[in-house]
Amino acid sequence: MLPDSQHAGATAPRERLLHAAGELFYLEGVHIGVDAICKAAGVSKKSMYQLFRSKDTLIAESLTSVGVEFLAALAPTDNDGRSPRERILHVFERQDQMSNSRTFRGCPFVNTATELKQPDHPGTVVARAFKQRMTDFFRTEAIVAGFADPATLAGELTMVFDGASARAVVLAQPLSGAGVAMASAVLSTAVRQT
Amino acid sequence: MLPDSQHAGATAPRERLLHAAGELFYLEGVHIGVDAICKAAGVSKKSMYQLFRSKDTLIAESLTSVGVEFLAALAPTDNDGRSPRERILHVFERQDQMSNSRTFRGCPFVNTATELKQPDHPGTVVARAFKQRMTDFFRTEAIVAGFADPATLAGELTMVFDGASARAVVLAQPLSGAGVAMASAVLSTAVRQT
Repeated sequence: MLPDSQHAGATAPRERLLHAAGELFYLEGVHIGVDAICKAAGVSKKSMYQLFRSKDTLIAESLTSVGVEFLAALAPTDNDGRSPRERILHVFERQDQMSNSRTFRGCPFVNTATELKQPDHPGTVVARAFKQRMTDFFRTEAIVAGFADPATLAGELTMVFDGASARAVVLAQPLSGAGVAMASAVLSTAVRQT
Repeated sequence: MLPDSQHAGATAPRERLLHAAGELFYLEGVHIGVDAICKAAGVSKKSMYQLFRSKDTLIAESLTSVGVEFLAALAPTDNDGRSPRERILHVFERQDQMSNSRTFRGCPFVNTATELKQPDHPGTVVARAFKQRMTDFFRTEAIVAGFADPATLAGELTMVFDGASARAVVLAQPLSGAGVAMASAVLSTAVRQT
Protein backbone atom coordinates (compact mmCIF):
# COMPACT_ATOMS: atom_id res chain seq x y z
CA MET A 1 0.00 0.00 0.00
CA LEU A 2 2.67 2.45 0.98
CA PRO A 3 5.43 3.14 -1.52
CA ASP A 4 8.66 1.22 -1.12
CA SER A 5 12.03 2.71 -0.30
CA GLN A 6 13.42 2.73 -3.83
CA HIS A 7 14.10 6.46 -3.92
CA ALA A 8 15.84 6.56 -0.54
CA GLY A 9 19.21 7.55 -1.93
CA ALA A 10 18.14 10.43 -4.13
CA THR A 11 16.22 12.60 -1.66
CA ALA A 12 17.18 14.89 1.20
CA PRO A 13 17.59 13.54 4.77
CA ARG A 14 14.31 15.12 5.87
CA GLU A 15 12.34 13.41 3.10
CA ARG A 16 14.15 10.10 3.66
CA LEU A 17 13.28 10.24 7.36
CA LEU A 18 9.63 11.07 6.69
CA HIS A 19 9.43 8.23 4.21
CA ALA A 20 11.18 5.63 6.43
CA ALA A 21 9.22 6.73 9.51
CA GLY A 22 5.88 6.62 7.68
CA GLU A 23 6.60 3.15 6.38
CA LEU A 24 7.98 1.69 9.62
CA PHE A 25 5.38 3.27 11.90
CA TYR A 26 2.68 1.79 9.66
CA LEU A 27 4.26 -1.66 9.27
CA GLU A 28 5.69 -2.07 12.77
CA GLY A 29 3.83 0.44 14.94
CA VAL A 30 4.68 3.81 16.45
CA HIS A 31 6.69 2.15 19.20
CA ILE A 32 9.49 1.18 16.84
CA GLY A 33 12.73 2.85 17.92
CA VAL A 34 14.20 5.90 16.23
CA ASP A 35 17.40 3.89 15.67
CA ALA A 36 15.62 1.62 13.20
CA ILE A 37 14.12 4.61 11.40
CA CYS A 38 17.43 6.44 11.17
CA LYS A 39 19.11 3.28 9.88
CA ALA A 40 16.42 2.75 7.23
CA ALA A 41 16.70 6.40 6.19
CA GLY A 42 20.49 6.41 6.24
CA VAL A 43 20.49 9.48 8.52
CA SER A 44 22.25 9.89 11.86
CA LYS A 45 20.25 10.17 15.05
CA LYS A 46 21.78 13.58 15.66
CA SER A 47 20.53 14.82 12.27
CA MET A 48 17.13 13.32 12.96
CA TYR A 49 16.76 15.30 16.19
CA GLN A 50 17.99 18.43 14.41
CA LEU A 51 15.40 18.01 11.67
CA PHE A 52 12.56 16.85 13.95
CA ARG A 53 12.57 18.11 17.49
CA SER A 54 11.35 14.79 18.90
CA LYS A 55 10.05 11.36 17.98
CA ASP A 56 6.52 12.69 18.64
CA THR A 57 7.04 15.35 15.95
CA LEU A 58 8.35 12.70 13.56
CA ILE A 59 5.23 10.58 14.25
CA ALA A 60 2.94 13.53 13.51
CA GLU A 61 4.80 14.77 10.42
CA SER A 62 5.29 11.34 8.88
CA LEU A 63 1.61 10.53 9.44
CA THR A 64 0.79 13.70 7.53
CA SER A 65 2.79 12.40 4.56
CA VAL A 66 1.27 8.93 4.85
CA GLY A 67 -2.19 10.41 5.28
CA VAL A 68 -2.03 12.46 2.09
CA GLU A 69 -0.97 9.35 0.14
CA PHE A 70 -3.53 7.08 1.84
CA LEU A 71 -6.47 9.41 1.16
CA ALA A 72 -5.28 9.97 -2.42
CA ALA A 73 -5.10 6.19 -2.94
CA LEU A 74 -8.69 5.80 -1.67
CA ALA A 75 -10.39 8.81 -3.26
CA PRO A 76 -12.06 8.90 -6.67
CA THR A 77 -10.91 11.56 -9.16
CA ASP A 78 -12.61 14.95 -8.76
CA ASN A 79 -15.61 15.40 -11.05
CA ASP A 80 -15.29 11.96 -12.59
CA GLY A 81 -18.91 12.05 -13.71
CA ARG A 82 -19.97 9.17 -11.49
CA SER A 83 -22.82 9.28 -8.99
CA PRO A 84 -22.14 10.08 -5.31
CA ARG A 85 -23.00 6.46 -4.51
CA GLU A 86 -20.39 5.18 -6.96
CA ARG A 87 -17.83 7.69 -5.70
CA ILE A 88 -18.39 6.63 -2.08
CA LEU A 89 -18.20 2.94 -2.98
CA HIS A 90 -14.94 3.64 -4.82
CA VAL A 91 -13.33 4.28 -1.41
CA PHE A 92 -14.48 0.88 -0.13
CA GLU A 93 -13.39 -0.86 -3.34
CA ARG A 94 -9.94 0.62 -2.97
CA GLN A 95 -9.82 -0.43 0.69
CA ASP A 96 -10.83 -3.92 -0.41
CA GLN A 97 -7.96 -4.01 -2.93
CA MET A 98 -5.50 -2.76 -0.31
CA SER A 99 -6.57 -5.55 2.05
CA ASN A 100 -5.21 -8.09 -0.48
CA SER A 101 -1.68 -6.84 0.18
CA ARG A 102 0.53 -8.74 2.58
CA THR A 103 1.62 -5.37 4.00
CA PHE A 104 -1.92 -4.12 4.71
CA ARG A 105 -2.20 -3.18 8.39
CA GLY A 106 -5.53 -1.33 8.36
CA CYS A 107 -6.17 2.39 8.54
CA PRO A 108 -3.04 4.37 9.48
CA PHE A 109 -5.15 7.01 11.29
CA VAL A 110 -7.04 4.57 13.50
CA ASN A 111 -3.85 2.59 14.11
CA THR A 112 -1.90 5.65 15.21
CA ALA A 113 -4.63 6.80 17.61
CA THR A 114 -5.02 3.25 18.92
CA GLU A 115 -1.31 2.80 19.48
CA LEU A 116 -0.59 6.21 20.99
CA LYS A 117 -3.56 6.12 23.42
CA GLN A 118 -3.12 9.83 24.10
CA PRO A 119 -5.89 12.05 22.70
CA ASP A 120 -3.66 15.15 22.76
CA HIS A 121 -0.53 13.60 21.26
CA PRO A 122 0.42 15.48 18.06
CA GLY A 123 0.16 12.17 16.16
CA THR A 124 -3.38 11.57 17.42
CA VAL A 125 -4.33 15.13 16.48
CA VAL A 126 -3.09 14.50 12.91
CA ALA A 127 -4.88 11.12 12.83
CA ARG A 128 -8.16 12.74 13.92
CA ALA A 129 -7.87 15.50 11.32
CA PHE A 130 -7.31 13.01 8.48
CA LYS A 131 -10.14 10.75 9.66
CA GLN A 132 -12.34 13.83 9.67
CA ARG A 133 -11.34 14.51 6.05
CA MET A 134 -12.56 11.04 5.12
CA THR A 135 -15.85 11.67 6.92
CA ASP A 136 -16.11 15.08 5.22
CA PHE A 137 -15.73 13.43 1.81
CA PHE A 138 -18.61 11.05 2.61
CA ARG A 139 -20.73 13.94 3.91
CA THR A 140 -20.14 16.07 0.83
CA GLU A 141 -21.12 13.20 -1.47
CA ALA A 142 -24.16 12.44 0.72
CA ILE A 143 -25.27 16.08 0.40
CA VAL A 144 -24.93 15.92 -3.41
CA ALA A 145 -26.93 12.67 -3.41
CA GLY A 146 -29.71 14.35 -1.45
CA PHE A 147 -29.67 12.14 1.63
CA ALA A 148 -31.78 13.43 4.52
CA ASP A 149 -29.05 13.25 7.18
CA PRO A 150 -25.63 13.52 5.47
CA ALA A 151 -23.68 13.92 8.73
CA THR A 152 -25.05 10.75 10.31
CA LEU A 153 -24.63 8.79 7.07
CA ALA A 154 -21.02 10.00 6.80
CA GLY A 155 -20.35 8.89 10.37
CA GLU A 156 -21.85 5.48 9.60
CA LEU A 157 -19.77 5.06 6.45
CA THR A 158 -16.67 5.95 8.47
CA MET A 159 -17.60 3.26 11.00
CA VAL A 160 -18.02 0.74 8.17
CA PHE A 161 -14.60 1.70 6.84
CA ASP A 162 -12.96 1.34 10.25
CA GLY A 163 -14.86 -1.83 11.09
CA ALA A 164 -13.76 -3.34 7.79
CA SER A 165 -10.12 -2.40 8.51
CA ALA A 166 -10.38 -4.08 11.92
CA ARG A 167 -11.91 -7.18 10.32
CA ALA A 168 -9.03 -7.53 7.84
CA VAL A 169 -6.44 -7.04 10.59
CA VAL A 170 -8.01 -9.33 13.20
CA LEU A 171 -8.87 -12.14 10.79
CA ALA A 172 -5.63 -11.55 8.83
CA GLN A 173 -7.62 -12.05 5.64
CA PRO A 174 -8.52 -9.91 2.62
CA LEU A 175 -11.92 -8.24 2.93
CA SER A 176 -13.29 -10.10 -0.11
CA GLY A 177 -16.05 -7.56 -0.58
CA ALA A 178 -17.32 -7.43 3.03
CA GLY A 179 -16.76 -3.68 3.43
CA VAL A 180 -18.07 -2.81 -0.03
CA ALA A 181 -21.22 -4.89 0.52
CA MET A 182 -21.94 -3.27 3.87
CA ALA A 183 -21.31 0.27 2.62
CA SER A 184 -23.58 -0.50 -0.32
CA ALA A 185 -26.32 -1.75 2.01
CA VAL A 186 -26.00 1.34 4.23
CA LEU A 187 -26.34 3.60 1.17
CA SER A 188 -29.29 1.60 -0.19
CA THR A 189 -31.26 1.94 3.03
CA ALA A 190 -30.34 5.57 3.86
CA VAL A 191 -33.33 7.90 3.74
CA ARG A 192 -33.42 10.53 0.99
CA GLN A 193 -34.70 14.07 1.39
CA THR A 194 -38.38 14.37 0.59
CA MET B 1 -13.79 -0.56 32.10
CA LEU B 2 -11.23 -2.94 33.47
CA PRO B 3 -11.17 -3.53 37.21
CA ASP B 4 -8.72 -1.54 39.26
CA SER B 5 -5.77 -2.97 41.15
CA GLN B 6 -7.40 -3.04 44.58
CA HIS B 7 -6.86 -6.75 45.18
CA ALA B 8 -3.21 -6.74 44.12
CA GLY B 9 -1.86 -7.70 47.54
CA ALA B 10 -4.12 -10.63 48.30
CA THR B 11 -3.60 -12.84 45.26
CA ALA B 12 -0.80 -15.09 43.99
CA PRO B 13 2.03 -13.72 41.82
CA ARG B 14 0.63 -15.37 38.69
CA GLU B 15 -2.78 -13.71 39.14
CA ARG B 16 -1.19 -10.38 40.05
CA LEU B 17 0.90 -10.50 36.87
CA LEU B 18 -2.08 -11.43 34.71
CA HIS B 19 -4.08 -8.60 36.23
CA ALA B 20 -1.34 -5.95 35.93
CA ALA B 21 -0.43 -7.08 32.41
CA GLY B 22 -4.04 -7.06 31.23
CA GLU B 23 -4.59 -3.59 32.65
CA LEU B 24 -1.33 -2.06 31.39
CA PHE B 25 -1.41 -3.68 27.94
CA TYR B 26 -4.93 -2.28 27.51
CA LEU B 27 -4.22 1.18 28.89
CA GLU B 28 -0.70 1.69 27.52
CA GLY B 29 -0.35 -0.86 24.70
CA VAL B 30 1.41 -4.19 24.31
CA HIS B 31 4.76 -2.45 23.86
CA ILE B 32 4.94 -1.43 27.50
CA GLY B 33 7.98 -3.02 29.12
CA VAL B 34 7.85 -6.05 31.39
CA ASP B 35 9.60 -3.97 34.07
CA ALA B 36 6.52 -1.77 34.44
CA ILE B 37 4.25 -4.81 34.64
CA CYS B 38 6.42 -6.56 37.23
CA LYS B 39 6.56 -3.36 39.27
CA ALA B 40 2.77 -2.94 39.17
CA ALA B 41 2.30 -6.59 40.13
CA GLY B 42 4.96 -6.49 42.86
CA VAL B 43 6.67 -9.53 41.30
CA SER B 44 10.33 -9.88 40.29
CA LYS B 45 11.24 -10.16 36.62
CA LYS B 46 12.83 -13.53 37.35
CA SER B 47 9.57 -14.84 38.81
CA MET B 48 7.69 -13.42 35.84
CA TYR B 49 9.83 -15.37 33.39
CA GLN B 50 9.47 -18.49 35.54
CA LEU B 51 5.67 -18.16 35.52
CA PHE B 52 5.32 -17.05 31.89
CA ARG B 53 7.95 -18.27 29.47
CA SER B 54 8.04 -14.96 27.58
CA LYS B 55 6.39 -11.58 27.24
CA ASP B 56 4.50 -12.99 24.24
CA THR B 57 2.96 -15.66 26.47
CA LEU B 58 2.06 -13.00 29.04
CA ILE B 59 0.37 -10.97 26.30
CA ALA B 60 -1.67 -13.98 25.17
CA GLU B 61 -2.61 -15.20 28.66
CA SER B 62 -3.48 -11.77 30.05
CA LEU B 63 -5.61 -11.05 26.98
CA THR B 64 -7.48 -14.27 27.73
CA SER B 65 -8.30 -12.93 31.22
CA VAL B 66 -9.21 -9.50 29.89
CA GLY B 67 -11.25 -11.07 27.09
CA VAL B 68 -13.41 -13.13 29.42
CA GLU B 69 -14.15 -10.01 31.49
CA PHE B 70 -14.74 -7.80 28.46
CA LEU B 71 -17.19 -10.20 26.82
CA ALA B 72 -18.97 -10.77 30.15
CA ALA B 73 -19.32 -7.00 30.58
CA LEU B 74 -20.87 -6.68 27.12
CA ALA B 75 -23.12 -9.74 27.02
CA PRO B 76 -26.73 -9.91 28.16
CA THR B 77 -27.67 -12.58 30.71
CA ASP B 78 -28.46 -16.00 29.23
CA ASN B 79 -32.16 -16.57 28.64
CA ASP B 80 -33.17 -13.14 29.90
CA GLY B 81 -36.46 -13.32 28.02
CA ARG B 82 -35.65 -10.43 25.72
CA SER B 83 -35.79 -10.60 21.94
CA PRO B 84 -32.64 -11.36 19.90
CA ARG B 85 -32.74 -7.74 18.69
CA GLU B 86 -32.76 -6.42 22.26
CA ARG B 87 -30.02 -8.84 23.27
CA ILE B 88 -27.81 -7.76 20.34
CA LEU B 89 -28.43 -4.07 21.07
CA HIS B 90 -27.51 -4.71 24.72
CA VAL B 91 -23.91 -5.27 23.55
CA PHE B 92 -23.86 -1.90 21.80
CA GLU B 93 -25.48 -0.16 24.77
CA ARG B 94 -22.79 -1.54 27.04
CA GLN B 95 -20.08 -0.45 24.60
CA ASP B 96 -21.67 3.00 24.59
CA GLN B 97 -21.53 3.13 28.39
CA MET B 98 -17.90 1.96 28.39
CA SER B 99 -17.00 4.76 25.96
CA ASN B 100 -17.95 7.28 28.64
CA SER B 101 -15.03 6.14 30.76
CA ARG B 102 -11.82 8.11 30.68
CA THR B 103 -9.95 4.78 30.54
CA PHE B 104 -11.83 3.46 27.50
CA ARG B 105 -9.32 2.55 24.79
CA GLY B 106 -11.60 0.63 22.41
CA CYS B 107 -11.81 -3.12 21.87
CA PRO B 108 -8.92 -5.01 23.51
CA PHE B 109 -9.00 -7.68 20.78
CA VAL B 110 -8.76 -5.27 17.85
CA ASN B 111 -6.18 -3.21 19.72
CA THR B 112 -3.95 -6.21 20.41
CA ALA B 113 -4.07 -7.40 16.79
CA THR B 114 -3.49 -3.84 15.56
CA GLU B 115 -0.53 -3.30 17.87
CA LEU B 116 1.15 -6.68 17.39
CA LYS B 117 0.84 -6.63 13.57
CA GLN B 118 1.75 -10.32 13.47
CA PRO B 119 -1.12 -12.62 12.42
CA ASP B 120 0.53 -15.66 14.04
CA HIS B 121 1.57 -14.04 17.33
CA PRO B 122 -0.07 -15.94 20.24
CA GLY B 123 -1.71 -12.65 21.31
CA THR B 124 -3.24 -12.14 17.87
CA VAL B 125 -4.49 -15.72 17.87
CA VAL B 126 -6.25 -15.10 21.21
CA ALA B 127 -7.62 -11.77 19.94
CA ARG B 128 -9.03 -13.45 16.82
CA ALA B 129 -10.65 -16.24 18.86
CA PHE B 130 -12.39 -13.75 21.19
CA LYS B 131 -13.53 -11.56 18.31
CA GLN B 132 -14.95 -14.70 16.75
CA ARG B 133 -16.88 -15.37 19.97
CA MET B 134 -18.48 -11.95 19.69
CA THR B 135 -19.42 -12.64 16.06
CA ASP B 136 -20.75 -16.07 17.07
CA PHE B 137 -23.00 -14.46 19.68
CA PHE B 138 -24.45 -12.13 17.03
CA ARG B 139 -24.90 -15.05 14.62
CA THR B 140 -26.67 -17.23 17.18
CA GLU B 141 -29.09 -14.41 18.03
CA ALA B 142 -29.61 -13.70 14.31
CA ILE B 143 -30.52 -17.36 13.76
CA VAL B 144 -33.05 -17.24 16.64
CA ALA B 145 -34.49 -14.04 15.16
CA GLY B 146 -34.94 -15.78 11.79
CA PHE B 147 -32.76 -13.52 9.68
CA ALA B 148 -32.07 -14.84 6.19
CA ASP B 149 -28.26 -14.56 6.36
CA PRO B 150 -27.14 -14.76 9.99
CA ALA B 151 -23.43 -15.08 9.17
CA THR B 152 -23.31 -11.93 7.05
CA LEU B 153 -25.41 -10.00 9.56
CA ALA B 154 -23.10 -11.12 12.39
CA GLY B 155 -20.07 -9.94 10.40
CA GLU B 156 -21.76 -6.58 9.80
CA LEU B 157 -22.61 -6.14 13.48
CA THR B 158 -18.99 -6.94 14.34
CA MET B 159 -17.87 -4.25 11.90
CA VAL B 160 -20.28 -1.77 13.51
CA PHE B 161 -18.86 -2.65 16.92
CA ASP B 162 -15.26 -2.21 15.75
CA GLY B 163 -16.05 0.91 13.76
CA ALA B 164 -17.71 2.41 16.82
CA SER B 165 -14.67 1.59 18.96
CA ALA B 166 -12.42 3.28 16.43
CA ARG B 167 -14.70 6.32 16.38
CA ALA B 168 -14.52 6.73 20.16
CA VAL B 169 -10.73 6.33 20.16
CA VAL B 170 -9.98 8.60 17.20
CA LEU B 171 -12.39 11.36 18.21
CA ALA B 172 -11.59 10.84 21.91
CA GLN B 173 -15.27 11.25 22.64
CA PRO B 174 -18.03 9.06 24.10
CA LEU B 175 -20.11 7.31 21.44
CA SER B 176 -23.29 9.09 22.51
CA GLY B 177 -25.48 6.48 20.86
CA ALA B 178 -23.73 6.37 17.46
CA GLY B 179 -22.95 2.64 17.64
CA VAL B 180 -26.35 1.69 19.07
CA ALA B 181 -28.17 3.69 16.38
CA MET B 182 -26.20 2.10 13.58
CA ALA B 183 -26.57 -1.44 14.94
CA SER B 184 -30.29 -0.77 15.31
CA ALA B 185 -30.52 0.43 11.69
CA VAL B 186 -28.60 -2.62 10.44
CA LEU B 187 -31.00 -4.91 12.33
CA SER B 188 -34.07 -3.01 11.09
CA THR B 189 -33.08 -3.37 7.45
CA ALA B 190 -31.75 -6.95 7.59
CA VAL B 191 -33.83 -9.37 5.52
CA ARG B 192 -35.83 -12.03 7.36
CA GLN B 193 -36.32 -15.59 6.18
CA THR B 194 -39.40 -16.01 4.03
